[in-house]
Amino acid sequence: MSVGLTAPDRLLPVDGVSLASTASGERYSGRDDLVLIELDQGTTVAGVFTQNSFCAAPVRWCRQNLAIGAVRALLINAGNANAGTGAQGMADAQQCCARIGQKLGLDSSQVLPFSTGVIGQQLNMRALQSGIDHIVKKTAADNWLGAANAIMTTDTVAKGVSQQVEIDGHTITITGIAKGSGMMCPDMATLLSFVATDAAIDEDTLKLILEQVTEASFNRITVDSDTSTNDSLLLIATGRSQLEPISSLQQPQAKLLCAAIEQVMVALATAVIRDAEGASKFVKIEVCNGANRQQCKDVAYNVAHSPLVKTALFASDPNWGRLLMAIGKLKHKSKPQATRLNMNKINLAINGLELLKHGEPAPDYTEQAGQDVFSQDEICISIDLGLGAADYHVWTSDLSHDYVTINADYRS
Amino acid sequence: MSVGLTAPDRLLPVDGVSLASTASGERYSGRDDLVLIELDQGTTVAGVFTQNSFCAAPVRWCRQNLAIGAVRALLINAGNANAGTGAQGMADAQQCCARIGQKLGLDSSQVLPFSTGVIGQQLNMRALQSGIDHIVKKTAADNWLGAANAIMTTDTVAKGVSQQVEIDGHTITITGIAKGSGMMCPDMATLLSFVATDAAIDEDTLKLILEQVTEASFNRITVDSDTSTNDSLLLIATGRSQLEPISSLQQPQAKLLCAAIEQVMVALATAVIRDAEGASKFVKIEVCNGANRQQCKDVAYNVAHSPLVKTALFASDPNWGRLLMAIGKLKHKSKPQATRLNMNKINLAINGLELLKHGEPAPDYTEQAGQDVFSQDEICISIDLGLGAADYHVWTSDLSHDYVTINADYRS
Repeated sequence: MSVGLTAPDRLLPVDGVSLASTASGERYSGRDDLVLIELDQGTTVAGVFTQNSFCAAPVRWCRQNLAIGAVRALLINAGNANAGTGAQGMADAQQCCARIGQKLGLDSSQVLPFSTGVIGQQLNMRALQSGIDHIVKKTAADNWLGAANAIMTTDTVAKGVSQQVEIDGHTITITGIAKGSGMMCPDMATLLSFVATDAAIDEDTLKLILEQVTEASFNRITVDSDTSTNDSLLLIATGRSQLEPISSLQQPQAKLLCAAIEQVMVALATAVIRDAEGASKFVKIEVCNGANRQQCKDVAYNVAHSPLVKTALFASDPNWGRLLMAIGKLKHKSKPQATRLNMNKINLAINGLELLKHGEPAPDYTEQAGQDVFSQDEICISIDLGLGAADYHVWTSDLSHDYVTINADYRS
Repeated sequence: MSVGLTAPDRLLPVDGVSLASTASGERYSGRDDLVLIELDQGTTVAGVFTQNSFCAAPVRWCRQNLAIGAVRALLINAGNANAGTGAQGMADAQQCCARIGQKLGLDSSQVLPFSTGVIGQQLNMRALQSGIDHIVKKTAADNWLGAANAIMTTDTVAKGVSQQVEIDGHTITITGIAKGSGMMCPDMATLLSFVATDAAIDEDTLKLILEQVTEASFNRITVDSDTSTNDSLLLIATGRSQLEPISSLQQPQAKLLCAAIEQVMVALATAVIRDAEGASKFVKIEVCNGANRQQCKDVAYNVAHSPLVKTALFASDPNWGRLLMAIGKLKHKSKPQATRLNMNKINLAINGLELLKHGEPAPDYTEQAGQDVFSQDEICISIDLGLGAADYHVWTSDLSHDYVTINADYRS
């Protein structure tokens, strides 16, 4: 089940990127589960990764080799996270990269591995090796959609977005894909996402752009507060367009491009939430007029992570007392008086319907009106703290029986 | 459903305490939902309350009037939390106390009100006033069990414990009751709990004892990470026993009494978890050999609050990769190297079965053995961080379909 989300019909090729997918049988049968993405020489790549202390073997490999630069190929398997797999897991990741390198004439450090799926199981290397041998000759520019399908695990809809932007008379293309629907509270990036553009962007600027757009997109979503061991988000710039290379965030061209990339990232990040495990609601939580940004962020996540708020959303029950409880979980010991949450200043509204006005039940509120807005598929919870001028927003989903079913059954 | 928990057959009276319960019809029909507890003159009372910023009207009243001292009566209603009810809610709480005071010849400040139930609805004062008029003449010493039953909301089993301890030849009695099974991550106390002893303890010492035993009991449980607006825990000392008054934690008598009170509190706190909403498992999470106590606590709560760990526990699925993920969520940026989580030092065991040894999958582990321990009703997760000598433990429950059902249906 997903909320207002359909798979893309087609994704635009990005000059300098070619892709292939195949069925390795590593975990799934009857579907593609292995993806190879080849990048032309001269491509710059920036990445952000999970901050989970026990990050997976492929994440460690990526961090190490991204720093060297000169990345030319990405290998992605779905179904097995290669996390919690000890020294064997690291050796397996390395061996996959070496095998790709051998076939494509690259050093193994130029190949980045990505894994997603069950944690704590060794890779089936026989299946992966045979998949690799099969995939290397099949890459094509127009295969983004196949890749988006092949990297899914508990996702029910393939997630991909293309966008074009005119800059200095040049049409710049941005295409991105993502997967992920549970174990989702990225602190740097979500499970797996790959976004490419044909603009030329130097590595330092690419990193800055990635940090900026990640903060506005993937770092603002949560399904269940659980941060994966494998989150990885890559931004790829092939430089094949004729647009002058971008080397500073201050260039007007950089700002246009940044805005377009951010649109793609937000579309991908919210697609992940629309397809969250068991989701029946797509929920935006907007906090405004906070004392500072961190306070707004903490309040937004307190609400987004509250199982009681999430079950009330699932039930379409206008039980707004639980929203109040979740906002109030923010502690303010030892904070200056002026920045402390104050019940008498709180305004609360759902899809524009006022629930609380200066901490008192809104006089015009009726249970029926509450029922009507809580029954909608897309819900915007607006929390006005009445303390200052800061704001923040996050996107989340509800907590349903399907979430429990999916996660009680996922391995078996 | 509850895990290994049955209601007490009988609870011992505490000299100086008398109780009554009645059916006010405020929310429920056909059951008692209102409790009055009268305390003899000279009784000392200490309380700890929720740290939720939006605490309920009765909690604010309690904080204010506990400071004055001379508390002589407690009034508890179940079904309506009187939270998020604005100025009207405060006026209603005050009016209930005044009415009790009038009937018993007390100042309203000597009466403490406690409410638990739905947040955001005004009290039905007509029902409560009639309940109050009915209850005032009915108090009796041997009515703890009736009170334990009358304060329940989503609880399925009444929770109460009695304990006697011999000190200096005197038999000291401690009896306590508690309610609560969801919105449960107390930061000071759980929903409602009242523990009384006939020992004489001065107010300052009573406060110290309460802080100490709370930290070892109610502050170590979590069902769903949600902190209620109404959490309140009172420790009551009537001083009716012949034991010399206790006026310092350093007295040997204080230590004996403190240990007995802690046993009562731990029994009540774990009873709350055994009866957690939808619980099918009773889970203890032990973290040892951490760099410091806070690190152990953070790791324990990361595991206890992870929806993915909790759904795996519900499924009896030995998906220990999720435990690893949840432990690793602990960030260690800017921490000294020696105190950072290190995968190579982690040992992980469930009910004594080794899963990970120094970060590598335990060689003797089999899926069948994992299945066997995860299928048990009572599960102890032991996490050895291998960094130092600190430890911490918490108790929690699993996340089941019944949790979602209960919380999607609770108001309707």
